[in-house]
Amino acid sequence: MSQTTTRYLAHLTWPEIAALDKEEGVVILPIGAVEQHGPHLPTLTDTLIVTHLLDVALARLPAEVRAWALPSLNYGKSNEHSGFPGTVSLSNATLNAVLHDIAGSVASAGFRRLALINGHGGNVAVLEAAARDIRAATGLLCFCIQPSFLVEPPFAISEQERRLGFHAGEVETSLILAIAPDLVHMERALAHYARFPDTGTPLFFFGPTMTAWLSRDWSESGVFGDATLGTAEKGSALIESAADRLATLLTAISRFELPARTKGS
Amino acid sequence: MSQTTTRYLAHLTWPEIAALDKEEGVVILPIGAVEQHGPHLPTLTDTLIVTHLLDVALARLPAEVRAWALPSLNYGKSNEHSGFPGTVSLSNATLNAVLHDIAGSVASAGFRRLALINGHGGNVAVLEAAARDIRAATGLLCFCIQPSFLVEPPFAISEQERRLGFHAGEVETSLILAIAPDLVHMERALAHYARFPDTGTPLFFFGPTMTAWLSRDWSESGVFGDATLGTAEKGSALIESAADRLATLLTAISRFELPARTKGS
Amino acid sequence: MSQTTTRYLAHLTWPEIAALDKEEGVVILPIGAVEQHGPHLPTLTDTLIVTHLLDVALARLPAEVRAWALPSLNYGKSNEHSGFPGTVSLSNATLNAVLHDIAGSVASAGFRRLALINGHGGNVAVLEAAARDIRAATGLLCFCIQPSFLVEPPFAISEQERRLGFHAGEVETSLILAIAPDLVHMERALAHYARFPDTGTPLFFFGPTMTAWLSRDWSESGVFGDATLGTAEKGSALIESAADRLATLLTAISRFELPARTKGS
Amino acid sequence: MSQTTTRYLAHLTWPEIAALDKEEGVVILPIGAVEQHGPHLPTLTDTLIVTHLLDVALARLPAEVRAWALPSLNYGKSNEHSGFPGTVSLSNATLNAVLHDIAGSVASAGFRRLALINGHGGNVAVLEAAARDIRAATGLLCFCIQPSFLVEPPFAISEQERRLGFHAGEVETSLILAIAPDLVHMERALAHYARFPDTGTPLFFFGPTMTAWLSRDWSESGVFGDATLGTAEKGSALIESAADRLATLLTAISRFELPARTKGS
Amino acid sequence: MSQTTTRYLAHLTWPEIAALDKEEGVVILPIGAVEQHGPHLPTLTDTLIVTHLLDVALARLPAEVRAWALPSLNYGKSNEHSGFPGTVSLSNATLNAVLHDIAGSVASAGFRRLALINGHGGNVAVLEAAARDIRAATGLLCFCIQPSFLVEPPFAISEQERRLGFHAGEVETSLILAIAPDLVHMERALAHYARFPDTGTPLFFFGPTMTAWLSRDWSESGVFGDATLGTAEKGSALIESAADRLATLLTAISRFELPARTKGS
Amino acid sequence: MSQTTTRYLAHLTWPEIAALDKEEGVVILPIGAVEQHGPHLPTLTDTLIVTHLLDVALARLPAEVRAWALPSLNYGKSNEHSGFPGTVSLSNATLNAVLHDIAGSVASAGFRRLALINGHGGNVAVLEAAARDIRAATGLLCFCIQPSFLVEPPFAISEQERRLGFHAGEVETSLILAIAPDLVHMERALAHYARFPDTGTPLFFFGPTMTAWLSRDWSESGVFGDATLGTAEKGSALIESAADRLATLLTAISRFELPARTKGS
Repeated sequence: MSQTTTRYLAHLTWPEIAALDKEEGVVILPIGAVEQHGPHLPTLTDTLIVTHLLDVALARLPAEVRAWALPSLNYGKSNEHSGFPGTVSLSNATLNAVLHDIAGSVASAGFRRLALINGHGGNVAVLEAAARDIRAATGLLCFCIQPSFLVEPPFAISEQERRLGFHAGEVETSLILAIAPDLVHMERALAHYARFPDTGTPLFFFGPTMTAWLSRDWSESGVFGDATLGTAEKGSALIESAADRLATLLTAISRFELPARTKGS
Repeated sequence: MSQTTTRYLAHLTWPEIAALDKEEGVVILPIGAVEQHGPHLPTLTDTLIVTHLLDVALARLPAEVRAWALPSLNYGKSNEHSGFPGTVSLSNATLNAVLHDIAGSVASAGFRRLALINGHGGNVAVLEAAARDIRAATGLLCFCIQPSFLVEPPFAISEQERRLGFHAGEVETSLILAIAPDLVHMERALAHYARFPDTGTPLFFFGPTMTAWLSRDWSESGVFGDATLGTAEKGSALIESAADRLATLLTAISRFELPARTKGS
Repeated sequence: MSQTTTRYLAHLTWPEIAALDKEEGVVILPIGAVEQHGPHLPTLTDTLIVTHLLDVALARLPAEVRAWALPSLNYGKSNEHSGFPGTVSLSNATLNAVLHDIAGSVASAGFRRLALINGHGGNVAVLEAAARDIRAATGLLCFCIQPSFLVEPPFAISEQERRLGFHAGEVETSLILAIAPDLVHMERALAHYARFPDTGTPLFFFGPTMTAWLSRDWSESGVFGDATLGTAEKGSALIESAADRLATLLTAISRFELPARTKGS
Repeated sequence: MSQTTTRYLAHLTWPEIAALDKEEGVVILPIGAVEQHGPHLPTLTDTLIVTHLLDVALARLPAEVRAWALPSLNYGKSNEHSGFPGTVSLSNATLNAVLHDIAGSVASAGFRRLALINGHGGNVAVLEAAARDIRAATGLLCFCIQPSFLVEPPFAISEQERRLGFHAGEVETSLILAIAPDLVHMERALAHYARFPDTGTPLFFFGPTMTAWLSRDWSESGVFGDATLGTAEKGSALIESAADRLATLLTAISRFELPARTKGS
Repeated sequence: MSQTTTRYLAHLTWPEIAALDKEEGVVILPIGAVEQHGPHLPTLTDTLIVTHLLDVALARLPAEVRAWALPSLNYGKSNEHSGFPGTVSLSNATLNAVLHDIAGSVASAGFRRLALINGHGGNVAVLEAAARDIRAATGLLCFCIQPSFLVEPPFAISEQERRLGFHAGEVETSLILAIAPDLVHMERALAHYARFPDTGTPLFFFGPTMTAWLSRDWSESGVFGDATLGTAEKGSALIESAADRLATLLTAISRFELPARTKGS
Repeated sequence: MSQTTTRYLAHLTWPEIAALDKEEGVVILPIGAVEQHGPHLPTLTDTLIVTHLLDVALARLPAEVRAWALPSLNYGKSNEHSGFPGTVSLSNATLNAVLHDIAGSVASAGFRRLALINGHGGNVAVLEAAARDIRAATGLLCFCIQPSFLVEPPFAISEQERRLGFHAGEVETSLILAIAPDLVHMERALAHYARFPDTGTPLFFFGPTMTAWLSRDWSESGVFGDATLGTAEKGSALIESAADRLATLLTAISRFELPARTKGS
């Protein structure tokens, strides 16, 4: 395979990058995290998931789709997991600075689209705000993809797990069992559902009326969900469907254009 | 009425504030925006909505609920509306700095809870990230409330409007018609639905796979939605239901406590 | 009254703002503070004064004067009053950032003049430095107005009060008695004159040889001056004369032009 | 003379500095500027004046007064003179950072008082704000001295010069003629009075209602005042009286203490 | 192999990291770059080299040596290669922020030593300054290792190449031929020696009297050196000797202790 | 001597600076430090050395060499000497900001070359990174000169002193004895060689495998080296040779030009 057709931008030489047709095409930045994931999962969990998912999706892209992944940003904003040794967190300001520096370099190379693909919930708000600022500052069309929300789990999942299993629970445990089983300690897997007070209102961890939470406020183990339900099979099935979805998205993004401005509808 | 029972914190003297029982109770910071809202609505729209809604909700709180509003932050992050004269925007970093400074002052006064109530979509991501950082930095329990998502409109609304009417459309026009009718120019109201490309994917303006947008990319007038559908009646009905919901929320938040940490469920 | 002739910029729509003739005219940003004002005045005192004074002055402007007020910045730099619950302070860097962001938005809308009207002594130095930087960075003609120094009190005032009554004393108490009497607790008003050491030099709280002071260094109550001398009559008289002065100033500023550069005199 | 009795702190060794009795005493930071001063004065003018004046004052201090000068900060905030080659300006943020870093070091050495003595008008507002912040952040008693305002010129000076001769005019030219006559080119001295519009209001370059100015807005030569009136005699007389005043001030400051807090007067 | 004995810190769970004996031991952060490396090498070159070298060295460490690698920081400060598409650079401030955030997290986990191992010349000065600041701010013993200077090339190398072959020349080309031969395009390899002027002084690109350079100032291709001399054999030999040296270093660092403070020698 | 031919840029007026032929020529910024130098040397040592050395070198420059020194930056980054009273340190960020502000002013005046001449080891890395950033940001050719590495001591020096005598030892003591003998207390001079552990590797205080050190980690007195060996004769000899070298360097730098870009060699 010619290097020029690689999906990994940094595997190219600079003249190859200069010569790319950039009218179509998207540069992709995978962003992970290094943070506690309970007593059974590695702290690298989020980075492992996002980079693996992207690798699978890239391999499925039709040859004519123009999409190139940047090296991963292995660290994210994880201060909600501070207090657990092994969590390594960038601040909001630092993560913003990194994103702006990378985006500025991408724009100056002549690319027109940048997709941020994110493996960690704690990065979501930062990326959304940064994406808009990147669009305004550089002119890049900028996209945010949160793969954890891409697809419904293709297996039965309890309502409790769906609602409260958002960190190191059934889904993430399954994914790492599929991606890096040697790094999982199922013998230490446990279940913990945070006792969010029933206030009779939509107040919750997430959503339009949310409470800002630290994991140590709610879970001694760092687990939110039932990790014992994780299986490699569930993980593989989820990767399969999410990677398909991601490939479709990257295809769409790579050709995305703004409409001509028009009045009314 | 005794000043001590006012809902407006800055109407109190410092010894009154020092004497407040702060074990329960929430300090509320309303955050608006000054930005283009089409040819028919004032640029102050978001600030008008959030402060009015808060005023109505505060008036409905039972006397025993401990909740005090700070003076509004009248400016937000509005760079998605740059290019339209009259838009006044704080940067991401500036808005974060303001929120951290205010939260630090609230914490140093001995309060335990801070609720950010937000009138502008462009502030959402910034507030979410800031709320978590405020919790980590100050120990405050910190809450984000986005009133625009609080309730379903208590009137029939088209699917197109629900999806694409997110700025200066039927809902916001109705609200300002109810709150400040003299500031609305219905004769200039128009309808514009942004032509978001049909990509066959969940890619959209918002959500887990989003494109970062500037309003000028998609709407010459700055309107997203059908402003001609706005009526004061719809606005009043919406305020009525949203204020009820908000009052319930503030009540819940004012008494919110973390659980003792426990293993498993 | 046509909206286009309102004095409140954010009451206009963006096309109205775009259409304003900006060759003449001044945009006005009122800046207050939320900080302790002794046991008898609300912490909102400075914001109340500056916005009220501006409202009165705007109402007196001849119709042909082009002047538009922005929504108030309700918070200022008040760290000299830290340690008193209820003081909410922006840092020097934060306040600068806010002013630069707002000024940048004003300049990008095509306006030529920006007046900062300030209700709080602790903001003065910050605004002076920022105004110069705004002029250099944006090209705006930028003006600073400190209304507390605008006019001589139109009533007899003791030398001691004139010198040491600079915070929550006779003048500020009178003003709030005139503006928002329900928020004043005259029964708790007291007199305190800070015992500034007599050094036989011009060293003082203010002026060219000044000591940087925190209010808690000098006053247990937070009062500097004799609050018991405050009356609504004095307040009204002061507002009357200050608003006239302010209206004259805004008129002059709205037409202010730089001279052509010339050698010698 | 023993080194321990030197007035120049950085001439001491660290154990000598550690051994100083710091209960009384003041550390002094002279701050100048490098900026255009017309066609006849060196750009170093402000630094030359402030360091010379301080040297003379220090030499006059009684032996028992505890006062130690730091090395000068030769650069200030001079962006009002941008556009004239030779102006070297620190930004507001940079100058603040330098002052905070130096003050932090002074406080950590155990000193209790810091006096900022300033030779440049463009630094005044920055220093005032910084001094307050230094007091709040470090606990140092912090003082600002603007020598240009210390004394009345001990010679006849016209009203026009007093009002409009604030940069490179009679006073500054006289001072440099006294301090560094070889650096003055009296053959190029000229007079320029800025044509500030007569607005019938107190609006002016300085004071409570001021316009933010750049020197290039108002003077092609960079001169504000009548430089041709400068003489070494005037300069020497001014230094004489200002140094006396400064010595008196430093003496007072070196012993300055806060009062115990007391109620009322 | 037990996960606890892995050399990759983020492969551990948080309780495993909490349980590590940290009295001895070093956490290692590999730092690379994404930047032009001529027409024949991938832009990922520096990251490939540093992570590969570290992997080899870690595999050679005796079991009793306590050393754990963090996930790589794939981006560095590369603005000296700006202007070549594909260069992605963090600013000085951003890279400092990232390093401080990571170091703070490492220190808060209870580790005592942090080693920065760097694959890119443009990072050297930033890391040196940051390492000292990290030591001062966190108490960590902090080390900087520049592998490119670790060993003499174990093969004959010309004086010209040694002096001027510092980027994409014989050494780096050999290393990538050994590490990732598929990413090298030897058919495009070329030789370029920058024509540094002969000034008869020690002035050079590097060293105590250096000129700050951008690669585009000196090389159209981005190559500095003779890439045609690169061979996989040379690369393997260099990796062999450098990894040995690195393993020895990491062993020494993992046990490094400060002396008790003593007077004299 | 005509002022225009002075070597001190700030002794010129702005029109003189505007009129300088800047095609050739270098502006020089001397940067020192205020920090502990043991019990026998003043904290001003580094600033004294660099400014004196520069003065001597400037006096030796041929008249046709175009070189102008800026006023010294008397403070540097000295946090490695924190904990010793009298150390006054700028942070990394602050020093960078100062350098960028000064460089920006130099570039805007039309100069083409800036040389940073540095008297303090703790500044080296900061200046190297800043110099590159200045070149990239301003277009200035920017040079870093570390005089302490300029020449071999022209007198016998022990291997131990050469290696471990890097602060307040034989060399620096000799230099201050030559420059400012009144400020040296030879009766308190002492010898201390830090006991750097013998790790059998090239790990050291400096160099490609370095440990970040604080002086208090290694020396109670702050001395690194044998100060008792210092003599004014050694200092004078060193100044003599270093100043010659510096003059040669400044001459070369003042004429330094980039080559036209060329392919290959």
